[in-house]
Amino acid sequence: MKQAAILGVTGYTGAEAVRLLHRHPNIEISAITGHSRAGQPISDLYPNFAELNLPGVIKIDDVDWRDIDVVFACLPHGASQETIGKVIDQVETVVDLSADFRLKDPILYEKTYGRSHDFADLLENAVYGLTEFARPELPGAKLIACPGCYPTCTLLSLAPAFDAEMVEVESVIIDAKSGVTGAGRKASDSLIYSQITDGAHAYGVGVHRHAPEIDQFLTYISGHETLVSFTPHLIPMNRGMITTSYLKLKDGYDIDALRQVYKDRYEDEPFVSVLPAGEVPHSRHVKGSNMCRIGLFEDRKSGHIIIVSVIDNLTKGSSGQAVQNYNVSQGWSETLGLTDIALFP
Amino acid sequence: MKQAAILGVTGYTGAEAVRLLHRHPNIEISAITGHSRAGQPISDLYPNFAELNLPGVIKIDDVDWRDIDVVFACLPHGASQETIGKVIDQVETVVDLSADFRLKDPILYEKTYGRSHDFADLLENAVYGLTEFARPELPGAKLIACPGCYPTCTLLSLAPAFDAEMVEVESVIIDAKSGVTGAGRKASDSLIYSQITDGAHAYGVGVHRHAPEIDQFLTYISGHETLVSFTPHLIPMNRGMITTSYLKLKDGYDIDALRQVYKDRYEDEPFVSVLPAGEVPHSRHVKGSNMCRIGLFEDRKSGHIIIVSVIDNLTKGSSGQAVQNYNVSQGWSETLGLTDIALFP
Amino acid sequence: MKQAAILGVTGYTGAEAVRLLHRHPNIEISAITGHSRAGQPISDLYPNFAELNLPGVIKIDDVDWRDIDVVFACLPHGASQETIGKVIDQVETVVDLSADFRLKDPILYEKTYGRSHDFADLLENAVYGLTEFARPELPGAKLIACPGCYPTCTLLSLAPAFDAEMVEVESVIIDAKSGVTGAGRKASDSLIYSQITDGAHAYGVGVHRHAPEIDQFLTYISGHETLVSFTPHLIPMNRGMITTSYLKLKDGYDIDALRQVYKDRYEDEPFVSVLPAGEVPHSRHVKGSNMCRIGLFEDRKSGHIIIVSVIDNLTKGSSGQAVQNYNVSQGWSETLGLTDIALFP
Amino acid sequence: MKQAAILGVTGYTGAEAVRLLHRHPNIEISAITGHSRAGQPISDLYPNFAELNLPGVIKIDDVDWRDIDVVFACLPHGASQETIGKVIDQVETVVDLSADFRLKDPILYEKTYGRSHDFADLLENAVYGLTEFARPELPGAKLIACPGCYPTCTLLSLAPAFDAEMVEVESVIIDAKSGVTGAGRKASDSLIYSQITDGAHAYGVGVHRHAPEIDQFLTYISGHETLVSFTPHLIPMNRGMITTSYLKLKDGYDIDALRQVYKDRYEDEPFVSVLPAGEVPHSRHVKGSNMCRIGLFEDRKSGHIIIVSVIDNLTKGSSGQAVQNYNVSQGWSETLGLTDIALFP
Repeated sequence: MKQAAILGVTGYTGAEAVRLLHRHPNIEISAITGHSRAGQPISDLYPNFAELNLPGVIKIDDVDWRDIDVVFACLPHGASQETIGKVIDQVETVVDLSADFRLKDPILYEKTYGRSHDFADLLENAVYGLTEFARPELPGAKLIACPGCYPTCTLLSLAPAFDAEMVEVESVIIDAKSGVTGAGRKASDSLIYSQITDGAHAYGVGVHRHAPEIDQFLTYISGHETLVSFTPHLIPMNRGMITTSYLKLKDGYDIDALRQVYKDRYEDEPFVSVLPAGEVPHSRHVKGSNMCRIGLFEDRKSGHIIIVSVIDNLTKGSSGQAVQNYNVSQGWSETLGLTDIALFP
Repeated sequence: MKQAAILGVTGYTGAEAVRLLHRHPNIEISAITGHSRAGQPISDLYPNFAELNLPGVIKIDDVDWRDIDVVFACLPHGASQETIGKVIDQVETVVDLSADFRLKDPILYEKTYGRSHDFADLLENAVYGLTEFARPELPGAKLIACPGCYPTCTLLSLAPAFDAEMVEVESVIIDAKSGVTGAGRKASDSLIYSQITDGAHAYGVGVHRHAPEIDQFLTYISGHETLVSFTPHLIPMNRGMITTSYLKLKDGYDIDALRQVYKDRYEDEPFVSVLPAGEVPHSRHVKGSNMCRIGLFEDRKSGHIIIVSVIDNLTKGSSGQAVQNYNVSQGWSETLGLTDIALFP
Repeated sequence: MKQAAILGVTGYTGAEAVRLLHRHPNIEISAITGHSRAGQPISDLYPNFAELNLPGVIKIDDVDWRDIDVVFACLPHGASQETIGKVIDQVETVVDLSADFRLKDPILYEKTYGRSHDFADLLENAVYGLTEFARPELPGAKLIACPGCYPTCTLLSLAPAFDAEMVEVESVIIDAKSGVTGAGRKASDSLIYSQITDGAHAYGVGVHRHAPEIDQFLTYISGHETLVSFTPHLIPMNRGMITTSYLKLKDGYDIDALRQVYKDRYEDEPFVSVLPAGEVPHSRHVKGSNMCRIGLFEDRKSGHIIIVSVIDNLTKGSSGQAVQNYNVSQGWSETLGLTDIALFP
Repeated sequence: MKQAAILGVTGYTGAEAVRLLHRHPNIEISAITGHSRAGQPISDLYPNFAELNLPGVIKIDDVDWRDIDVVFACLPHGASQETIGKVIDQVETVVDLSADFRLKDPILYEKTYGRSHDFADLLENAVYGLTEFARPELPGAKLIACPGCYPTCTLLSLAPAFDAEMVEVESVIIDAKSGVTGAGRKASDSLIYSQITDGAHAYGVGVHRHAPEIDQFLTYISGHETLVSFTPHLIPMNRGMITTSYLKLKDGYDIDALRQVYKDRYEDEPFVSVLPAGEVPHSRHVKGSNMCRIGLFEDRKSGHIIIVSVIDNLTKGSSGQAVQNYNVSQGWSETLGLTDIALFP
C-alpha cells in the first residue's frame, strides 16, 4: 500500500484527487494539506467527504515526509515548484498537477508564467504525463508533470494525426470551451453564480498559457515546429470541456484514412474512445469519468477536418490523469481507482 | 398605426415578436396565429403576457387579411413560403423570419432544405434583411427575409473586413455557440432540461444549413466566392449566441487597420458596438436587447485575427432584427420598440 | 424632471435601479456612486450599460447634493443609515432599499441587525413601502423604506387574508426560495458558480432577518400579534423568488371566500395578479418585470390553505418597487418606468 | 452471481439502475428492456454506457425469464403491475421502483392513480422498502416496493420523531423541491430546457400522489392516523431533492431530545447522516451517492421544529435504494454497489 499526500485540497483538483484516491485499492491517503484550512476536517470544505475516513487538513510544513511514498501536488504554479523542490528527495514519486514542470524550456516558462523557474534542473527528467503518449517514460518516473486540461483534451484529439504526419501543421485552430470548475475555487466576483450563469464568453484570446504547452507537444510528436491558434471560452456548466479543432490534411489523405489512424491508435486504450462516423461527443457523457471521447468530421471544404473532443476537466483533464499516470509508473493496471463511468443525467 | 399579424406564436421567435411589438408606438398587434393553440388566450402559452391586452390565438386561415398591414411570419421553413405565397398580395409588407427567402438560388435552397422552393419568383425581390447592410433596399420593401441567428452574429462580425477586402477569403473558420432557445420550442426528448443542462456538444458539424447563407452574403459583399467552415455548438444557456471567427488578413493589414475599419463602419449604428481593444464580449450582456457586441483580437500567429461576436439569438438574431428591418422599411426611427437594454444579471 | 442619485451601484439592486430609471420619463440619473469603483465608467461593472449615456461612478462624498431631488439608496444596512442621516435634509426624497428603516422599533432593529440604530428619530415618519398597502402614506413622503424581497413576496400573498381576519394567525409557515442575485454581488467562495449550480439548500433556518419584518407588518394589518415561521432556500436560478405559505383559515371561511377577497383587493392593481383556480405561478414568468403573481390553493387538509407567490427579487422585490413607491409619492402614474414585461423564455 | 433484468431503461431510474448494477460484485446484468428502443445498443440512449459490456435493449416479451434471478422494474405505474403479475412466479425476486405496490389499500391506489389495481393479492406481502425501516421484512422478500423519491426523503427525516411519538401528528407540513430528472425522460414541451431553466414553480399543490404514501407510513410508524400537508416544487437542477418539514413537538420535548433520538436511530446507518447542530444539508453534496443528509433546527416559534433532508432522487430516492433493498434481502453487505460518494463540485 503506497502512502499518498495530497497537497492543496482547497482547490478543486485537490478535492478530485481525494475523491478518486480514497478508494484506490493500492493507495492510502496519509496526508492532506490546505493552507487556509489547516486544522479543519476536510468535510468543512467538502461535505460530500463527511462519511469517509480521512486525515484532517494540515499545512504543508506539518507533513511528515518519511511517511509518504507519493505526492499529488495540486498547488498553484510557482507554489508547486517551491514545495516540490523541497520534498522531491524525500519521497519516491511526485505527481504534479500544476504547470510548473510541463514546459521543457525554462525561458519559455518564464515568459509564459511571468516568473523565473527555480528548479530548472528538474525539468529534463520530468515526464510530461499525457498518459497515452508517455508510457515508455512513466515506469519508475520520479517527477510526473500532468498536462493542463486544455492540452489534454486537445492533444488526445490531435496527436495521432500529427504523429502520422497527415496534417498541415500551420493550419491548426483550436476553439475550446470549459466548464467553470476549470477556473478553480477562487473567491472572485467574476466567478459568482450571478455573473456566470446563462451566458458565455471567450477569455485569454490569443494569449492563453496553455497554447505553448500544446505547441511543445505537437512539435515534439510531429517533428515540425508548430504554433497553434487557441481560444478558450467559459460556458455555464460545472465540469466538462470540449475542444473543436480545425485542420487541413496534407494532400493524399482523407477522413477515412484519418479515422483509421485514430481507431488503430486508440483501439486498446481504456480511456479514449473514437466515436463512429456521425456521432458527436457530449461533455455530459464523460462527467466524473476519466474518458476522452473524440469525433472526427469532414468539413464542407475539401481537405479540411473538424475534430471534437470532450473530457471532464477535473478527471481526465487533471486528477484522473494524475492517478492514471501513477498507476502506469507503478506498473499497476491503468484503470485502478478510475472505473467510475460518467454520472448522467 | 400599422396593424400587424404575428404568425406562429407557438415558437419562441413568435413570442419574442409579441414581446417587442406590444409596445411599439407605431404598431398594433391585430392577429396572432398558432396552429396547435388556436382558440386559447396567448397567456396559456406564455403566462408572462397575461397582463397585456392581446388578441386570442387563431389559425392562419382565420386571419382577416384586409385588417393587416404587415405580417411577421415566425413559421418553420416550408410552412412559411406556403403562407406567404398566399397572403403577400393582400398585405403591404411581409417580414419573414424563416429560412425560406434568404437564399437567392432556389436550387441551393432545395439542396439545403430538402424541398423544392414553390415561390422562387419572390426570391429576386426579397430583401436579405441584415439591417446594417440592407438599408438601401429596405425602404418600401414588400418582402424582407430576416437572416438566421448564426448568420446575423457571424456576418455583422465579418462583413466590414470582407467589404474592405482585407481578408484571405478562403481562411475563414467560424465556431459558433448557441443558447437552447435557438433550437425552438419542440417537445423533443433531446431538448429536455435533463439532457441539456451542465454539458455541451457540437451539432450539424460540416453540414449546418446556415453555412450556405453565410457564404452567400460574404461572397456578395467581398466579390469573391467564399465557402466558410462553420460549426455550431449547443451550450446550456437559454438566450444568447457567441461566434468566434478565425481569419487571416491579407498582407499589409494588421489588427489596428482592421479595428479602424470596424469602428468607422459601425460608429453610427445603434445596435452594433465594437469593443475597445482587450475587452471580450459576453453573451449575457446582450440578453433581451437588440445589440451585437464585437471584439477584435490579434492571434499569436502573425497575420491571424480572431473576432468574437455576441447577440441574443431571439432578439437581434431573430425578432428584434425583424422589427428593426420593418422600422427602416417604413422610414421610422430604427430603434422604435427596441430600446430595452440587456437584462443583466 | 427629477434629478436622481443612485447610491451603491456595485450591488445588484443599484444596477437594477439604473436599468429601470434610465428610461423613466420623469427622472434623470444625475449621480451614481460605488465606493470601490469610483472613477470608472459604470460599463466597467455592467457592460450592458455601455450604450447608455450615464454619469461615471463617484464616491458618495463627491455627490453635489444641491443637484439631487431624490436618492435611491442601494447600500448595505448600517452604511445606508449613516449616509441617509447626513443627506436627508439636503434632498427632497430618500428611497431606501436597505433594511435600516423597515423596522419601527430600534431595539428590534438592534437585536436583528446586530448594531444600534443611530437615526431612530427618522423611523417614525419612514413609510414602509409595500406599495399596494402604503398608498395613503406615500404622497409627499420624505423617507421611504422599501421592504425586503422576501417580505414583499410573502406579504403581498398574505396581507389580504390577514386584513380580512380570515386566518389563524399563529398557523403561518412560509417556505421561501430565492435566486442567487438575492445574495448580492459578493466575492465569496460560497457564491461561486461551481458551489451553487445544480444544487439547493436552506439557510438562516429559524433566524433569518426578514422574519421580524414579516411579523411587524402582519401584526399591524391584522391587529393580532403575529410570529411567523420563515425558512429561506437558495436555488440555482439568477433572478426570481417563490414563497409558499401554509395557513389555516378561521372557521366559516373557505378557499372560495379567500379567493374572492384577493380578487377584490387586487383587481385594480397594475402589479399584482391573482391567478385563476388551478394555475400555479412560475418565477420565470416575472423575470425582469415588476409583477407579483399569486396562486391560492386548498390543501388536502380541511381548512388549510396554500398560497404561492412569485416576484423578481431585484425588481418588485427591490428596485422596481422603489421606483413604484417614488411614482406614487410624486402623484405620477404608478407604472412609469415599469412597463417591461417578463423576459421569457 | 445473481442474474438481473432491468426493465424500462428508457427512463432515468432504469439508467441509474444500470449505472449502479454494472459494477455490483454479486450481480450481472443479463437483460435490459426498453419498449421504444428495442434492438438498439443502450449506448444509443446513454452514450456514457458505451464502454461497458452490456446486453442490447430488448422488449419485455423477449426476456427469457429462466435466466433471471431478480427483476428491477423501472416501468411506469400500471405497466409495472401488469408485467410483475406475469413474471413474479418465474423469478426469485422482484424489486419494483414504480408506485404499484407501495399503497397497501387497493381502493386508495385506485383513487390515487386513477386505475384499478389488478394484482391486489400481491399487496399484502409486498415489502415497503424504506430500507432503514424495512430490515426485518426484507430478507427473502419476493416483492419489494421501493418508496417514491419524495416519500424517501421525507420519511427518513420524519420517521424517528414519529416513531418516538414526539410529534403532534396533525401539525406536519412538508415543502419539497425536486430536480428535473424527477419528472422523467419525457418528450414534453413543458420539460424542455428553455421552459425550465432559471425559474421555479410548485406543482400538484394539494393533490400530489406521494402524499398518501407518506400518510400511510407515518400512520403505521406512529400508530396515529396522519394526514400531511405536502407541496412539491420543480427547481432548475438535474439530480437532487430537498424536503423542508415543519412540525410541532409534543409538550415536554425539545430540539436536543429530538436530535438525540435521530442520532441514536441513525448512528449505524451507512446511508443516513444526521448533521451537527447548525449545519444545513445541501442537495449537491449527495449527487450520485446513496446518502440522505438530515439537519434538525429549532424554529423561532417555541416548540416548533424544522427538519431539512436531502437525497439524490435517482439514487437513494430510486435505484440506489432498490439496490440497497436487494442487498439486504440477500443478506449481503448493504453497501455493495453503492460506495460512490457524491460528485461535487
